[in-house]
Amino acid sequence: MKAILVDEQTKQLYLGEADEPSASAGELLVSVKATALNRADLLQKRGLYPPPPGASEILGLEMAGVVDKVGADVKGWEPGDRVFGLLPGGGYAERVAIPAGMAMRIPDHLSFEQAAAIPEVFLTAYLNLFVLGGLREGHDVLIHAGASGVGTAAIQLVREAGAASIVTAGTREKRDACLALGAGLAIDYTAGPFVQAVQEATEGRGVNLVMDFIGAPYWQQNMASLATDGKLIVIGTMGGSKVNELDLGFLLRKRLQVIGTALRSQPVSAKIELTEQFARFAMPRFADGRLKPIVDSVWERDQANEAHAMMEKNQNTGKIILRIQE
Amino acid sequence: MKAILVDEQTKQLYLGEADEPSASAGELLVSVKATALNRADLLQKRGLYPPPPGASEILGLEMAGVVDKVGADVKGWEPGDRVFGLLPGGGYAERVAIPAGMAMRIPDHLSFEQAAAIPEVFLTAYLNLFVLGGLREGHDVLIHAGASGVGTAAIQLVREAGAASIVTAGTREKRDACLALGAGLAIDYTAGPFVQAVQEATEGRGVNLVMDFIGAPYWQQNMASLATDGKLIVIGTMGGSKVNELDLGFLLRKRLQVIGTALRSQPVSAKIELTEQFARFAMPRFADGRLKPIVDSVWERDQANEAHAMMEKNQNTGKIILRIQE
Repeated sequence: MKAILVDEQTKQLYLGEADEPSASAGELLVSVKATALNRADLLQKRGLYPPPPGASEILGLEMAGVVDKVGADVKGWEPGDRVFGLLPGGGYAERVAIPAGMAMRIPDHLSFEQAAAIPEVFLTAYLNLFVLGGLREGHDVLIHAGASGVGTAAIQLVREAGAASIVTAGTREKRDACLALGAGLAIDYTAGPFVQAVQEATEGRGVNLVMDFIGAPYWQQNMASLATDGKLIVIGTMGGSKVNELDLGFLLRKRLQVIGTALRSQPVSAKIELTEQFARFAMPRFADGRLKPIVDSVWERDQANEAHAMMEKNQNTGKIILRIQE
Repeated sequence: MKAILVDEQTKQLYLGEADEPSASAGELLVSVKATALNRADLLQKRGLYPPPPGASEILGLEMAGVVDKVGADVKGWEPGDRVFGLLPGGGYAERVAIPAGMAMRIPDHLSFEQAAAIPEVFLTAYLNLFVLGGLREGHDVLIHAGASGVGTAAIQLVREAGAASIVTAGTREKRDACLALGAGLAIDYTAGPFVQAVQEATEGRGVNLVMDFIGAPYWQQNMASLATDGKLIVIGTMGGSKVNELDLGFLLRKRLQVIGTALRSQPVSAKIELTEQFARFAMPRFADGRLKPIVDSVWERDQANEAHAMMEKNQNTGKIILRIQE
């Protein structure tokens, strides 16, 4: 089969040949129509984020496609069904195997390109906000990188939970996109510290949750933005990882939680449980349009390098999609 | 009524006169038989830990006694009932008011002195282990200060959950007491770092939970003791509060959580919910002896200064009790 592979010398992507996968017991073999880019792909192609043991060496953490074969012990799926979901790897290829418990049905009105934009960002946001964050109606949530894939998913999930979001984003266009999705306030982080705007917007209470990708440079402001019993959820350290000013007494007095998390490294059993919970909450909302996959752009499979370059420059609002097969 | 009060000049305790409390709607007025010491008492008498707004100025965060009067809108309690529970303050006095939702019935075979040894330490341990820590059967838990009041409660709760505990304690006598309560391993922290013993005892997996009172000096070792998805629960910073080496990337890769918490500062609604959850799990186990209050020593009300001196020297295993009335 054809697959988008990494040239070990140049680290450039090219369309090559890879072995056909097969469906083991409990798995579906899927003919991939579209996949989507993740920051992990950029790291993995440089050898900085090796796939977990047993996972495909091929890039691609999510896909949308059509069921090709149904493995033993799988119920409820048939060849020809439209399917999408998280992958441990292998989405940048014509065919991939997926544990049936991680597979979801594509709502009728969504294209493959739209469905491929959902799994990583919505499941990450759902895990962070609901499972780890305990998001409830009336909460205030600070979402950094609001226009990113995870950010645009999180804004919508917060809105659907009856909670309010404050986002940070670096351009007027991105801030407008966040506000259109339901953010209550969009802060220009290039104009200076964000903590005062957060405190003003919450009338001095602070936020119940912070979702952060930036890490060390935002640490002090994130801490100062949290309400009593607040949680800082760290899912990236793009600005740096080492913090030299943690005050455990402050954590204790305000009963704060600092939670490091990642979706990809979770065991399959955790991903299946998460997928089931997420599907109950989100699939009816995708079906009637309350939740929308946010597609920044769609690229053909021979444009993979251009698509990666776009993500490297942080130019996207929402997901960057790669079409794999017609 | 008589109450143990603080001399503002000398910071010594003395038996004086205080105004009688009354039972508001939803409260019980209790005739106090026994109270128990907490570290917060030592801070509060020095003016370092002011009581929350609306709480009594009198020391005492827990009590056991007999219902004296039943406030309006309270069901299920009658004068003469034996009662114990958490207090926002006021336990060092002959009478105190308690929200009925925070009151628990004393099992028949327990004395007032034993019952007074339960609320703070068992509710703190329950909150940390189950509510915040998500303790489950098969987990490994590291409990610092294993022979302390909270430590001895935690060892028993971990055992009752079908999980295993590793404790640290500074004397042979304290370590033996921890092992007798069900700890699987007791480490002498005076003999050097504890992390290697923790890793050996868990065959290199690390522990799912750490309950820490020490703070900064143990930070690095606590982090290195945690398994993937592990949680560090910080309920004290007796050794210092400022950590200058937090690696957010390490938190993210191992999906770790750092949770600061305190029982006293929680709103009454949270304490009522916690008391209800705790009572369901623990009261049948106190009734049949699977859980035991750990009483270090019992002091008369005119020996309050001696009792405080004992806690200041860290000499106790389990709770230090003050008898208030015959």
